[in-house]
Amino acid sequence: MKAEIIAIGSELLLGQITNTNAKFIATELAEIGIDVYYQTVVGDNSQRLNEVLEIAQKRADVLIFTGGLGPTKDDMTKESIAKCIGTRLVSNGEALTYIEDYFKRTGRVMTENNKKQALVFEDATILPNRHGMAPGMAIEKKAIRYILLPGPPHEMEPMFRDEAIPYLLGVTGKKEVIVSRVLKFYGIGEAELEFRIQHILDKQSNPTVAPLATREAVTLRLTAKALSKAEGLKLIEPVEKEIRAIVGDFIFGIDDDTLASKAVDLLLANQFSITAAESLTAGLFMAELAGEPGISDSLKGGVVVYNEETKIKHLDISANLLSEYGVVSEECAAALAVNAKRKFDTDIGVGLTGAAGPESHGGQAAGTVWIGIAIGESTPHTYKLLLSGTRNSNRQRAVNFALYYLIKQLHT
Amino acid sequence: MKAEIIAIGSELLLGQITNTNAKFIATELAEIGIDVYYQTVVGDNSQRLNEVLEIAQKRADVLIFTGGLGPTKDDMTKESIAKCIGTRLVSNGEALTYIEDYFKRTGRVMTENNKKQALVFEDATILPNRHGMAPGMAIEKKAIRYILLPGPPHEMEPMFRDEAIPYLLGVTGKKEVIVSRVLKFYGIGEAELEFRIQHILDKQSNPTVAPLATREAVTLRLTAKALSKAEGLKLIEPVEKEIRAIVGDFIFGIDDDTLASKAVDLLLANQFSITAAESLTAGLFMAELAGEPGISDSLKGGVVVYNEETKIKHLDISANLLSEYGVVSEECAAALAVNAKRKFDTDIGVGLTGAAGPESHGGQAAGTVWIGIAIGESTPHTYKLLLSGTRNSNRQRAVNFALYYLIKQLHT
Repeated sequence: MKAEIIAIGSELLLGQITNTNAKFIATELAEIGIDVYYQTVVGDNSQRLNEVLEIAQKRADVLIFTGGLGPTKDDMTKESIAKCIGTRLVSNGEALTYIEDYFKRTGRVMTENNKKQALVFEDATILPNRHGMAPGMAIEKKAIRYILLPGPPHEMEPMFRDEAIPYLLGVTGKKEVIVSRVLKFYGIGEAELEFRIQHILDKQSNPTVAPLATREAVTLRLTAKALSKAEGLKLIEPVEKEIRAIVGDFIFGIDDDTLASKAVDLLLANQFSITAAESLTAGLFMAELAGEPGISDSLKGGVVVYNEETKIKHLDISANLLSEYGVVSEECAAALAVNAKRKFDTDIGVGLTGAAGPESHGGQAAGTVWIGIAIGESTPHTYKLLLSGTRNSNRQRAVNFALYYLIKQLHT
Repeated sequence: MKAEIIAIGSELLLGQITNTNAKFIATELAEIGIDVYYQTVVGDNSQRLNEVLEIAQKRADVLIFTGGLGPTKDDMTKESIAKCIGTRLVSNGEALTYIEDYFKRTGRVMTENNKKQALVFEDATILPNRHGMAPGMAIEKKAIRYILLPGPPHEMEPMFRDEAIPYLLGVTGKKEVIVSRVLKFYGIGEAELEFRIQHILDKQSNPTVAPLATREAVTLRLTAKALSKAEGLKLIEPVEKEIRAIVGDFIFGIDDDTLASKAVDLLLANQFSITAAESLTAGLFMAELAGEPGISDSLKGGVVVYNEETKIKHLDISANLLSEYGVVSEECAAALAVNAKRKFDTDIGVGLTGAAGPESHGGQAAGTVWIGIAIGESTPHTYKLLLSGTRNSNRQRAVNFALYYLIKQLHT
C-alpha cells in the first residue's frame, strides 16, 4: 500500500508556515508499514488541487489531505474532492451541534460560514475532531482511499493517531509489525561510516539499514518487519552486532539518546559530580547538561573564564602557563579541567578553550579547540579539534565533542 | 515566473526530518515576487524523481531542488537531472580542492566517494558552498531554470540567499525592487500585537504589513514595492512610525537583530563590561552573548551556581537569605547580580534563578523565574516570570527575557 500526503494551503506556498503535518503523518505511516513515495503541497485553488489529485490517483492507493476544511472562502478541499470523486456534501448533525455549542460556550457570535465546517461526504466514515470544529473524513472510491484532515496540527495529530490509524489498520489488515532501532554515532562522518559498512548496507533487506546525518549526530536506523516485536528484535540483533564490531567505537547511544542525555545518564549512574571551566563555549557545555532533568544531583556549578584575567584570577591558571603555551593549548585545557575540579570539589572537571572564530585567538587558527577532562586523581585526558564551521557551529561542536569524549571516558 | 520546490530525500518521506527548506525557499521567493504553486517531496529514487521532474517541467519555469548532493550511493539528484535534461557531469576543480583541503585540515581520511560531491553539470553556473562540501548549481535548458541546492539547512540557506537569489533576480530582470523592514518584538504575543494594530494591518497595501511569530520573537515585516530602494524606504517610514507610536515599547530591534546581537551591540557601544551568575540557565545566558563576535571586549566571565552550596561558597550568597526567601526569589536574583558584578569587577551583573521544571524548586512552581540586573552602583532591577513551557523552553525563555530586559535598561 502506497500513500501520498497532500497539504493544501497558500500559507505553506508563501513560506508562512512549515509543513510539520507531513513529517508527523509520514512517521506514523512508517510505523504501520505504509510506504510514502510522495508529499505534495498545493495552494487553495480548485483547479490546481484537481490536477494534483489526478496525478496522485495514478501513483498511490491512499491519499491523505491536510488543510482547507475551515470556514472561510479559501477553504475548498471538500468541494474539490467531492466533485473529483463523484460524491455529495451533506451537513453532519453531530458536527453542527458541536460547532453551535462551541459558540454558545465561548459567548462568541456564530457566523453563517461556520456551518460549512459541518459539511461531509454523504458516504464517508467520519473522523471526529476532538480539538476543533471541522471533522475529518475517510472514503473509498474505485479502490483508492481518501482521508481528509484539518490543517492545525493540534487538531490533526490526535485525529490521525486516534481515528485515521485504526481506519488504515482495518484497511491493510496487516499482521506484520515494524520494529526499529536507531544507532547514534559521533566523531565519524556519514560518508566514512557508510564506506566502512558498505558490505552490510548492500546485503541487507530485513532489517533494512538506513544512514542519516542530523545536525548533532550520524545515525543508522535498523528496521525489521516481523510477526511480533520479539521476532523483529531478533532479526535486528545480529546486524547490530556486526555493525558494532566495525564502528562500535563511534556509537554513543541508541534510539532517543542525545549526547547530553547519555552523558547525564552515565554521570547519574556512576554518582559522579561534575563541573566545567569554559572559555570559547562560555557556559554552553554546562547549559546542555542542565537541559536534562535530574542533573542537579551531579552538576554543582562551574565557571565561565572568558578572558585571560578571569582565568588567572578566578581559576588560578598560572600566567606563566598562558605566556608559555598560550590560552588555546593542551596545557591550558588540562589546567582548566583540573583547577575547576579542585575549586568546585567534584569528581570530574571539564575544560574548554579554543578559537571560535572568525578571528584567530591566542596564536591559534579559528576552529582550533582543546578539551580537557579530569576524572578523579588521574592525569587529565586532552583532545584537540580542528573545526571549520562558523563561530557558533564551532562552539556547538566543541560542546558536542566534549560530551562525546566524556561519554567515552565514563563507558570505559 | 512560477517556481516549484522539490525536496529529495527518503528521510523526509519516512518522517525523520521536517522539510524546513521548502518554507525557507518559499519565503525568499515571495520576497522577490516569484510565485510558488507547488512543493513536492520525493525519495532517493531515480525513476520517481524523473517522474516528478516531468510533471514539474509542465507546470513551472523554475525548479528548485534540495538534497541528494552528498557523497553516498543514495545521493542521485545530479545524475538523474543530468540524464533528464541532457547534460554531462564533470569534476569541478575548485570544489574538489575544497573537499581535499577539508579532509587535510581536519586530519580525517578522505574516502573515494567524497569526490562525487565535486561533480557538477558541465554547463552550469556554480553556486559555491561556503559551509559544506557539495556545491550548488543553476542551469537553463529549454527556457526552464533548474537550481540544485544541498539538503542541510545550514549549507542551503546561505547559498540560497547569497547565490541563488542574485541569479534569479538576474533572470527575472525586474525593474521593481522589493524593500522590506522587519520590526522585532519581545514580551508581547502575536494575537495581542495584531489586535492593537488591526486598523493598520487592514488598510495597508504598499507597504504590506505581515505579522509572523518565530521561536524567538514576534515580528512585523513591512514590504514595499517601488522603483528604488530610497523610494521604498520612504513608503515604509510613516507606517513604521505609526506602529512604533502604539507598540514601540516592545520593539527590541530591526531586520537581522536578535536579542543577543542587540544586547551585545549596546554593551559594546556603551563600553560596558558584563558578567552573570546563572542557576536554572546554567550558562546559557553567557553562551548566547558569546555567540556574538566582539563580545570579548565586554564579557569577562561569570559563574554557574547550580546548587545552594555553590551559591554560598562561590558567590557569597548568604545562607540566611536563602533560608529566609528561598533560592527562587527576588532577593536571590538581586544578590546573584550584585555579587557577580562585584566578584568579576564589571559594570553589569545579571542573576538568573528559577524552577525550570518539570518539578517545583525552592518552594516555587515550575516556570517561576527571577531575573536580577545590576548596573553600576544603583539598586538592581528585578523581574519575575511565570512560564508554562517545558524545562528547556522555560530555560531558553528565561535567557530571552534577561536579554530583553538588559536591552531595555541599556536603551534608557
